[in-house]
Amino acid sequence: MKMLINAADTIVSDALNGLAQAHPGMVRVMRSPDYVIRADAPIKQKVAIISGGGSGHEPMHIGYVGRGMLTAACPGAIFTSPTPDQILAATHAAAGDAGVLYIIKNYAGDRMNFEIAIETLLLEGIPVTSVIVADDVAHPNSDLRRGTGATIIVEKIAGAAAEMGASLEECTRVACHAERQCRSIGVALSACTIPALDRPSFHLGDDEIEIGIGIHGEAGRHRTTLMPVSYIVDQLCSALADDLGLRAGDRTLALVNGLGATTQIELYVAFYEVARWCAAHNIVIERSLVGNYMTSLDMAGCTITLMRLDDELLRLWDAPVCTPAMRWGL
Amino acid sequence: MKMLINAADTIVSDALNGLAQAHPGMVRVMRSPDYVIRADAPIKQKVAIISGGGSGHEPMHIGYVGRGMLTAACPGAIFTSPTPDQILAATHAAAGDAGVLYIIKNYAGDRMNFEIAIETLLLEGIPVTSVIVADDVAHPNSDLRRGTGATIIVEKIAGAAAEMGASLEECTRVACHAERQCRSIGVALSACTIPALDRPSFHLGDDEIEIGIGIHGEAGRHRTTLMPVSYIVDQLCSALADDLGLRAGDRTLALVNGLGATTQIELYVAFYEVARWCAAHNIVIERSLVGNYMTSLDMAGCTITLMRLDDELLRLWDAPVCTPAMRWGL
Repeated sequence: MKMLINAADTIVSDALNGLAQAHPGMVRVMRSPDYVIRADAPIKQKVAIISGGGSGHEPMHIGYVGRGMLTAACPGAIFTSPTPDQILAATHAAAGDAGVLYIIKNYAGDRMNFEIAIETLLLEGIPVTSVIVADDVAHPNSDLRRGTGATIIVEKIAGAAAEMGASLEECTRVACHAERQCRSIGVALSACTIPALDRPSFHLGDDEIEIGIGIHGEAGRHRTTLMPVSYIVDQLCSALADDLGLRAGDRTLALVNGLGATTQIELYVAFYEVARWCAAHNIVIERSLVGNYMTSLDMAGCTITLMRLDDELLRLWDAPVCTPAMRWGL
Repeated sequence: MKMLINAADTIVSDALNGLAQAHPGMVRVMRSPDYVIRADAPIKQKVAIISGGGSGHEPMHIGYVGRGMLTAACPGAIFTSPTPDQILAATHAAAGDAGVLYIIKNYAGDRMNFEIAIETLLLEGIPVTSVIVADDVAHPNSDLRRGTGATIIVEKIAGAAAEMGASLEECTRVACHAERQCRSIGVALSACTIPALDRPSFHLGDDEIEIGIGIHGEAGRHRTTLMPVSYIVDQLCSALADDLGLRAGDRTLALVNGLGATTQIELYVAFYEVARWCAAHNIVIERSLVGNYMTSLDMAGCTITLMRLDDELLRLWDAPVCTPAMRWGL
């Protein structure tokens, strides 16, 4: 596996330096422990929205720090949860006096380390709440569902609410509401390669794909032979709509997310099939995102996220945002 | 080669449908011949900025249609120039009464077909000018230099000028000025696969890279073994600065562009090395872009573009833009 890096053990550090150099007006990068924080944080009267997780999913989360989205992000090592001290350092630097909302993807390590941070903050008297993102319908046990594409949407929605001056209670409510309206599922065409291991995380045959893949290569629902994308999207959208209980007339936001090595032209082809599927089921796509928003290193494939929209979520989604990887209105 | 498509011969058409469905407020997609046009075109008193080229480089050009950038784009088949009738159809639909500026990458087919369109327009009495983008320093003969990353910058600069109401003469002047201030060079870690051929366009060994690669896999300056990215960036930036005559104190815009299969974390690592190189040479990076802006299907690697900035170019670069793939201020 060839990569544009200096060494496997400096990737995350070098990339954070690159982020800082590329977007000095938006973010600052702090070291030992590492976190990314809005250039203008802390902001006294606004709720701090903080997320984090293993690296290797860029631009998530470090690319979503800025006005209208995350106040800070804690990047762990590749595919490794951030540590409690990272989370606490970011929180102490980012928190004003309106409290802190953690957006946590539903992985055991992430949950545990954010939970340790929460216990510490409560002892310190800092108001803190959290929302667990668990949108991946591939897992049969809904308690064990992984956090995937919905994370970006929840970060945007909560960040918009905080930017508008909503209280911690209100930010938490809309974040939980947004999370409950999202479902995701993915398909892999090839595995990813963890740099330090230098071998694919699993093996797919030359004509094989895996439906329901996790963003770290966790096993999906089943393997099958490569099919036209219209068939693949039909399976994925049906699974999402069933689980979310989407009905004719429902309004949605649709995210077609590349996993890293899949081309933008393919993502637009996949989005076209999502649009066709929705049209055939009288489901309205009111907003859309097509691109690499939450990757899995160099995995080929995509995830699809559907969110049921209402006026409140739409208004928060459309609010201005200015981060390295998502920007409009500013 | 596995792809998320329906069939090799419907990729471009399906992707255009996806683009249209994903961004209905920004663009319209017209058929037979195919082109992408701003949703609000033609705009009576503004110069129409039009580009085009082979597909497979997404988001270029179709993702750059919208306010403050391209008025229309003509996507050819994969790696194939758009036809004169495509270019003329787009032009007739996009042109107001202030004339038309074509932004043409320096490839024989593109130049020939845009030239045919220009001759037709002149017979029709439609004012038309053009700028040839030839920024890739890898080719030893400067007349044969390919158009690469600078194309996006020239499209942004010319589009901003047109949006502000500049005349055709003025739009052409700033586009040519921007083009002359840009140089690019790329490195490939792996080849791309043309869908209809289903085999890599060339072969690189397991530890081999190619410096100076073209965006269609054209041969570069030389092959070498994989090195740390700091060494690679040193070679690339030195070549750019030599050719552009960059001097200590010069202000620049730096674009680190992924070729398709390279991860965002690697692009930030590469940008960090560009920033270090510039700092070591007292060259100031005032603006930056890091991401997949002009791809080469699923090629792994990146291109680096440096543009010498002045106040005029900076003002046009910073002007609001609202397209599927580049957006700020709107």
